Amino acid sequence: MDWIEAGIGMNATKASTDTANTPERSVQLTQVMEWTDGTMLPHDDALAAEEPLEIRIGAFPATTPLTVTMRTPGHDEELAAGFLLTEGIVSDAAQIAALRGFVTSAAGKRNGVEVELRDCEFDPGQLQRNFFAASSCGICGKASIDSVRARALLPPNPGFRFDPEVLVRLPEALRASQAVFGRTGGLHAAGLFNAVGELLVLREDIGRHNAVDKVIGWALLEERVPLSDSILLVSGRGGFEIVQKAIVAGLPVVASVSAPSSLAVQLARELGQTLIGFLRGRRFVVYAGVERIAKI
Amino acid sequence: MDWIEAGIGMNATKASTDTANTPERSVQLTQVMEWTDGTMLPHDDALAAEEPLEIRIGAFPATTPLTVTMRTPGHDEELAAGFLLTEGIVSDAAQIAALRGFVTSAAGKRNGVEVELRDCEFDPGQLQRNFFAASSCGICGKASIDSVRARALLPPNPGFRFDPEVLVRLPEALRASQAVFGRTGGLHAAGLFNAVGELLVLREDIGRHNAVDKVIGWALLEERVPLSDSILLVSGRGGFEIVQKAIVAGLPVVASVSAPSSLAVQLARELGQTLIGFLRGRRFVVYAGVERIAKI
Repeated sequence: MDWIEAGIGMNATKASTDTANTPERSVQLTQVMEWTDGTMLPHDDALAAEEPLEIRIGAFPATTPLTVTMRTPGHDEELAAGFLLTEGIVSDAAQIAALRGFVTSAAGKRNGVEVELRDCEFDPGQLQRNFFAASSCGICGKASIDSVRARALLPPNPGFRFDPEVLVRLPEALRASQAVFGRTGGLHAAGLFNAVGELLVLREDIGRHNAVDKVIGWALLEERVPLSDSILLVSGRGGFEIVQKAIVAGLPVVASVSAPSSLAVQLARELGQTLIGFLRGRRFVVYAGVERIAKI
Repeated sequence: MDWIEAGIGMNATKASTDTANTPERSVQLTQVMEWTDGTMLPHDDALAAEEPLEIRIGAFPATTPLTVTMRTPGHDEELAAGFLLTEGIVSDAAQIAALRGFVTSAAGKRNGVEVELRDCEFDPGQLQRNFFAASSCGICGKASIDSVRARALLPPNPGFRFDPEVLVRLPEALRASQAVFGRTGGLHAAGLFNAVGELLVLREDIGRHNAVDKVIGWALLEERVPLSDSILLVSGRGGFEIVQKAIVAGLPVVASVSAPSSLAVQLARELGQTLIGFLRGRRFVVYAGVERIAKI
């Protein structure tokens, strides 16, 4: 199994803003049967947890449902904050007055986050219409480059430069922080790095877009957005959803270890983001924004 | 690059029902820069195409929007048919009176499919509320095992059996049919096999759920559902969305080359489906339904 599918560790920094879920909830243990070359044996296995998270706007009891997303428990407040930013509902941490996890099941599972907003227009009807046609994970009606442009906090920083020798070290840096969940083999990772290759934060999720929202939500709550001087590395493909979230957050560079889609490349080119694919070993492909690669 | 990420070929059968899109639309050519060990060179590259598809219910001009999904062009009618089935809007091919692609842009792109239904209750308001909270790709409010049970055409066939020696040959059979798009490296594959390991159909898409909907839609339009005697193999992870679609279509076995999620395993166990993960070489892990593996 290569690292793209290998499980993902916990955050690499101490700057987590999320204490409502324990790391243990990210993994579920179960018994399975393994067939190897004709022999079947039982053994214990760890699964990447997948549970719904409901995000609601307002303060209990007067809350309005925003969305429900299937996610891996952990860093739920960051996920909610990142989702609000990348979907264009807030543009600043100051607009989030409060973020609270809440219990959603008789079993006591904390599968909800309520968000109190301030200085922020919020029209539940419009939102519902938007999300009907424009969720962040594929059902995408606002899938136009103009709508991403309208939501972007800042154009991706044209002055940002990075050394290709730094870039090629990032996948290993991400891997090195992924020890805890390596056993599940089912999580996507997203990591934020600075220009000298230091890992600022790592988040993981069964949904690639959720891992990115968690990273961006962490940055929002840390008051680090727009992320004008950072590189986002994702463990899977660089599709439209990833690039659009990164652009909204102001990231000048998105790198992935696999292929981008045509629409991701078009979006990165039109909005001036550097998009890297197939970042493996001492090789990568530049799909957009080659000017940010420093000439050493 | 391993085959999980490698691009995917065209359908392996002649039983395609979709002529509205040419294979060429699945790939877009572009020029990129490749950095290898300090040297930067331009070259041509092929990208997996990602474009929105709008599905509408009714006959022009009186149509109602159902959903917009980001997909790889090709087999759009199958994608629409599969989506209608796996989301519980239709349960039989006879309920689909007509499926027509339509042009959605000034540039003449066929990014729409309209579906005429018959003998089928269709409440656009309810549908919108459902899809708001319950898209098939992550924003999932109906994410309950009961709702999947309610949509399932039949329980997964308890009498179906397969030989593990057949199962371990399926990934190579899928790979062997994937020559055309190998160059893009950005597509997920879903393939349907019978109990002796013959490939019935192969579809690919930038979205794993779309590849599955295309395969199931093909089967629906071929009047092969419920798929009581088939195995579904997917190239990525076996998450909840994949397992739920397979169960609705009546598939007794889902196999993937990577890890399933906790919710996928729970769903397969409760509804009696066989779920296989990490199908690689002469090894696989059985997460649910081990009784369908024939004792040779």
